[in-house]
Amino acid sequence: MAKKTLTGIAASDGIAVGPAYLLVEPDLSFEKKNITDVDSEIKRFEAAVTVSISELEAIRDKAKTDLGEDKAAIFDAHLLVAQDPEVTGQIEEHIKNNINAEAALQDATDTFITIFESMDNEYMRERAADIRDVRKRIMSHLLNVELPSPTMIDSEVVVVSEDLTPSDTAQLNRKFVKGFVTDIGGRTSHSAIMARSLEIPAIVGSGSITESVTNGTMIIVDGLEGNVLVNPTEAEIAEYQEKQAAFEAQQAEWEKLKNEKSVSKDGKEVLLVANIGSPGDMEGVISNGAEGVGLYRTEFLFMGRDNFPSEDEQFDAYKAVLEGVKEGAPVVVRTLDIGGDKNLSYLKLPEEMNPFLGVRAIRLCFKEQDMFRTQLRALLRASVYGHLQIMFPMIATLGEFRKAKAMLEEEKAKLVSEGIKVSNDIEVGIMIEIPAAAIIADQFAKEVDFMSIGTNDLIQYSMAADRMNQDISYLYQPYNPAILRLVKNVIDAAHKEGKWAGMCGEMAGDQTAVPLLLGLGLDEFSMSASSVLKTRSLIAKLSSTEMAELAEKAINCATQEDVIATMDEYLK
Amino acid sequence: MAKKTLTGIAASDGIAVGPAYLLVEPDLSFEKKNITDVDSEIKRFEAAVTVSISELEAIRDKAKTDLGEDKAAIFDAHLLVAQDPEVTGQIEEHIKNNINAEAALQDATDTFITIFESMDNEYMRERAADIRDVRKRIMSHLLNVELPSPTMIDSEVVVVSEDLTPSDTAQLNRKFVKGFVTDIGGRTSHSAIMARSLEIPAIVGSGSITESVTNGTMIIVDGLEGNVLVNPTEAEIAEYQEKQAAFEAQQAEWEKLKNEKSVSKDGKEVLLVANIGSPGDMEGVISNGAEGVGLYRTEFLFMGRDNFPSEDEQFDAYKAVLEGVKEGAPVVVRTLDIGGDKNLSYLKLPEEMNPFLGVRAIRLCFKEQDMFRTQLRALLRASVYGHLQIMFPMIATLGEFRKAKAMLEEEKAKLVSEGIKVSNDIEVGIMIEIPAAAIIADQFAKEVDFMSIGTNDLIQYSMAADRMNQDISYLYQPYNPAILRLVKNVIDAAHKEGKWAGMCGEMAGDQTAVPLLLGLGLDEFSMSASSVLKTRSLIAKLSSTEMAELAEKAINCATQEDVIATMDEYLK
Repeated sequence: MAKKTLTGIAASDGIAVGPAYLLVEPDLSFEKKNITDVDSEIKRFEAAVTVSISELEAIRDKAKTDLGEDKAAIFDAHLLVAQDPEVTGQIEEHIKNNINAEAALQDATDTFITIFESMDNEYMRERAADIRDVRKRIMSHLLNVELPSPTMIDSEVVVVSEDLTPSDTAQLNRKFVKGFVTDIGGRTSHSAIMARSLEIPAIVGSGSITESVTNGTMIIVDGLEGNVLVNPTEAEIAEYQEKQAAFEAQQAEWEKLKNEKSVSKDGKEVLLVANIGSPGDMEGVISNGAEGVGLYRTEFLFMGRDNFPSEDEQFDAYKAVLEGVKEGAPVVVRTLDIGGDKNLSYLKLPEEMNPFLGVRAIRLCFKEQDMFRTQLRALLRASVYGHLQIMFPMIATLGEFRKAKAMLEEEKAKLVSEGIKVSNDIEVGIMIEIPAAAIIADQFAKEVDFMSIGTNDLIQYSMAADRMNQDISYLYQPYNPAILRLVKNVIDAAHKEGKWAGMCGEMAGDQTAVPLLLGLGLDEFSMSASSVLKTRSLIAKLSSTEMAELAEKAINCATQEDVIATMDEYLK
Repeated sequence: MAKKTLTGIAASDGIAVGPAYLLVEPDLSFEKKNITDVDSEIKRFEAAVTVSISELEAIRDKAKTDLGEDKAAIFDAHLLVAQDPEVTGQIEEHIKNNINAEAALQDATDTFITIFESMDNEYMRERAADIRDVRKRIMSHLLNVELPSPTMIDSEVVVVSEDLTPSDTAQLNRKFVKGFVTDIGGRTSHSAIMARSLEIPAIVGSGSITESVTNGTMIIVDGLEGNVLVNPTEAEIAEYQEKQAAFEAQQAEWEKLKNEKSVSKDGKEVLLVANIGSPGDMEGVISNGAEGVGLYRTEFLFMGRDNFPSEDEQFDAYKAVLEGVKEGAPVVVRTLDIGGDKNLSYLKLPEEMNPFLGVRAIRLCFKEQDMFRTQLRALLRASVYGHLQIMFPMIATLGEFRKAKAMLEEEKAKLVSEGIKVSNDIEVGIMIEIPAAAIIADQFAKEVDFMSIGTNDLIQYSMAADRMNQDISYLYQPYNPAILRLVKNVIDAAHKEGKWAGMCGEMAGDQTAVPLLLGLGLDEFSMSASSVLKTRSLIAKLSSTEMAELAEKAINCATQEDVIATMDEYLK
C-alpha cells in the first residue's frame, strides 16, 4: 500500500509504531445450492466443526493465560454451542434435504437465533449472540476464509478496525496491542474511552484506515496530534520514536507529581479526582495520582446482567471504592442515572418520544423507590469505610433535592434504629446538569453540601441539542459564553455559601478548558484518571489570577468562536 | 344517570347548559362465522352498503350547507369508496367463500388498507383512512349499531367525547354545539386550543365524562371553574344561567375595550397581540381587539398537504395577514418551525432519538435552504403590504442568527435587483426558546431588532423535561424562579439596547402570569385572540410599579411553590 497520512481524532495520548493487524469482518457470503452427495457434504460440515472446536479451545486457553478466567469464559460458552448435538444435528437434517452445508448452517442457526432473541430474557439473548459467533467461525472454515482472532495476537501490532466494540476490546492483550486506529468514532465514543483506560495511543474517526492498510503494513499512530502515517519512511520512524521518547520523558516528569498536591503557580490549590465506573478502576485512580473519586457512575453495576444487584452486592462495591482511595480522600458516588440512553434489560421503562427529556436518573428513582432506597441503604452502610459524598443526578428543582435527601434520612434513621453504624459526616450534593438548576444555583447552595457540574448534559440541554445527534454536533459548544456563565454562576453561588463546586463532565479533563476553569474558580476537577498528572502539571504552570482575567473576558464574549480566539490570545 | 359533579381543566371560558351528545366509538366487534346461504348474505351486505351511501349523501349535503364545500369534500371521498365496485366486489368474493358479511368486510378491506398504508405516499394513506371510515359505517349497519354523526347535529347539545381530533372538530357546527367535555387532554392539547378558537365553553381532562352520561343527559359545563354538573337540579341550572349572564355582562364590558390601548393603572402601555396559524384567523384577531399579530405560525400552511406551497401561495397568505390587521399594526411572522413533533409528509427527515433536541426549525431551514429561501422571498415580497417583523425560531447561537439574516439579505438583494419592491423597514428578530440564547440575551440584543420569548419550549429545555411527557408534567414549571430569571434577563437586555421584548408562549395569555410579566417589564404579550380583551381589562387594574416589586420578590424565591405563594399574597 502507498505511503500516506490520515488525520483523525486523537483519542488517547502517546505514539505507537508497528505493523497493522486488521480486525475486520471477512466476506462470508455464499450461494445456496442443491447438492446430491449428502454424505460427503455432511463430512465437509463435520470437518469444519472439528477444526472450529480446536481453534476455540486454543483461543480459550490463551485467553485464560493472558487475560484471565473471566474474559475466557465467553469461549467456553462458544465451545458449548459448537459441541451441542442439538445444534449440529439440526444443521445435518438440513443437509439431508439436499442443501449445501453453508446454507444449512445459516438456515438452521437462524431458527435458533430467532427463537432465543425473541425471548424476554437477557441470558437467552446472550446465547443467540454465542450462536452467531460460532456460526461465523464454522462458516469461515467452510469457505476457507480467515477470521481475525484478536486473542491470538502474539507479537506487537497496531490494531486497525472500523470500530471497536466492548467485546473486541475485552479480547485485546495490552502486552501486544501497542495502539489502535478506527474508521469511525469521536472523543467520547466507547473505543476512545477504552483507549484512555488501557492507556494506549489511539486515533478514532480516521475515516478510511481499514481501506488504507493490509495486515502487516507499517503504521505510526500519533495519539498526541491525531495523525496516522501509513508506510512511513525510516526517517519518519526515527522522528516519531524521538517524539515518543520526549513524550515518555514528559510522562516521567508527570509521574513525579503523583504524590503532590495540585497547586497553581500562584498558590491556589484545587482537587484533581477521577471518574470511575467500577471498583476495578481504582488501580488506575491510585497509579495516576488522583486525589479521590469525583464521579462514581454506579449504574454500571446494574448493567449487563439479568436482575438488580442486591443491597449486599452494592455495599461491597461501594465499600471497595471507599477503601480503594488514600485514607480520608473524598469519594463522590452518583446515585443511579438510568433512563435516557441507558436502559436495564430487567426494568421495563415506557417508550418515550424524547428519552433525554424524559424519566431518567432521579426522576426514575422517584418512580422505582425500592431500587433507589436499596442503593441508599447500601451507600449508608458503606459510609463508615471512608469519606462518602452522595450526589443526586438530574436535579431540576429544590423540591426534588429535598425529596431525595428526605428519603436518604429516612433510610439512615431505619438503619440506625437497627443498630447499624452509619457515618455522620456524609456530604450530600447534586449534579448540576439541568439549566434551571444552574440558574438558581444560589438557592441550591443554601441547602446542598456541594455541587458538581455535569457539562455533557448541561451543554446538551442549554443548547437544546442532542449530544449524540451528528447532524447538530456544531451546537455542542463547551465554550459558548452561555455555558461559561452558567459554570461561573454555580461556582460563585457555592462559594458564597461556603460550599465547594466541582465538575465531572468531559470538559474538566480537557487541557484547553482547564485554564478557563481555574480562572472561573472551580474547586474540584473530575476526569479520566489518565488525565490527572498532565492536568496537575499544567495547573502548576498557570497563574489563577491571570486565568481569572481570562475568564472574565470569556464570559463577556458573544460566541464560542470569540471565546476560543480570546483563549488563544491569552495562552499563546 | 345519577347526579354528580366532575372536575376537569377549564379549557375555554363560558358556561353551557344542554343535553349531552356522545361522540364515542360504538362497539363494532363481531364473530367470524361460516355461512351457507351465500345469496342472502350478499343481499344483507348490499343493503348495508345502500343505506350507508344514502347516509353519506345526507351528511355530505348537510356539511356543504352548514360548514362549506371544503369540509364536505371528505364525504365525497367516502362516497367514492362506498360506490367503488372494485371494493364491494372483493368483499362479495369473500362472502362467496362462505364467510359472513362482517368478516368478509373486515378481511377484504384489511388487504386494501395494508397496501395503501404501506405506500410512501400521503394521498394513498388518506385513501386508507377513507376505507377505514367507510368500513366502520357499513359495519354499523350490518350490526345494527348507531354511529355518531357530528355533522348531523341539528339541535343545541354539549358534545361529550374521550378526546376531540382535528377531524372531529372540523365537523362540529358552532350553531348547535354549545360546549364540550372530554375525558383526556390538558390546557395545551389540540381540543383545548380548538375550543378557545371556536370560543365555546370547554372542559378537558374530566377523567370519566363519557362513562357518566348517555345521549340526552342534561349537563352544565362551567368553563370558568372547570366543573361539569351531570343531571343538575333546576336550582343549579338557574344559578349557572345567572353566572353565565354575569360572564356575558363582563364580556360586554371587555367588548368596550376593543378599540382601546392596553394601559396599566399607572400609565404603562403594553401591546396585546394575537397568535395565529392562518389568514383565516384574522377575523378573530380584529373582533377581539388585538393590536396586531405577535406570532404567525407559518408551518400550518405547509401541513396537511402533499407538497410545498409555492412562493406565490405563501406570498398570498402573508399578504393577507399583513393586510388583515389595522393599518400599520405589527405582524410577527415566525419562519418555519418544522421538525420536533411537527413533520411534513413530503419532506423526509432522519429518524432521531430525541426529536425535540434535534434538527428542527432554523436548524432544518439551514439544511433545506431552498425551502427556507422560498419562504424568505415570499415574506420580502409581502413586506410592502404592512408592518412586517420576521422572527427566526430555535436560535441557539449568534452565529445562527447572523447566518439566517445574511440569507434574508441575499434574497432581498436579488429581489431588488429584479426590480421587485421590498420594504426597508422590516424588523428582524428571534424567538428566545433555548436557554443558552436567553442567558446571553445581552449579546443578542446588540444585533436583533426584537426578542420574543417562547415559553413552552424555553420551559421544556430549561427543565430538561419533555412538555408532552405526562410522567414528568410536574416539571413543566412556568413559575420556577429559574424561568422567571431568564425572562427578566431577556427583557432587561432588550431594553438596555433600546429593543422590545415580547412573549408568545402559553404563559403570555395566562391571567395568573400577566401581573408578573407586567412587573418584569414585558412590552408585548402575544396570546389566543380570545384572551386579549380580558387581559386588557386586567392590566388596566394593575399598577406596573407594584407588579415590579412582586416580580423582584418572585425571582428571588427558591421554588415555584414559593413564587405562587408570593403572588397569592400580593394579589389577594
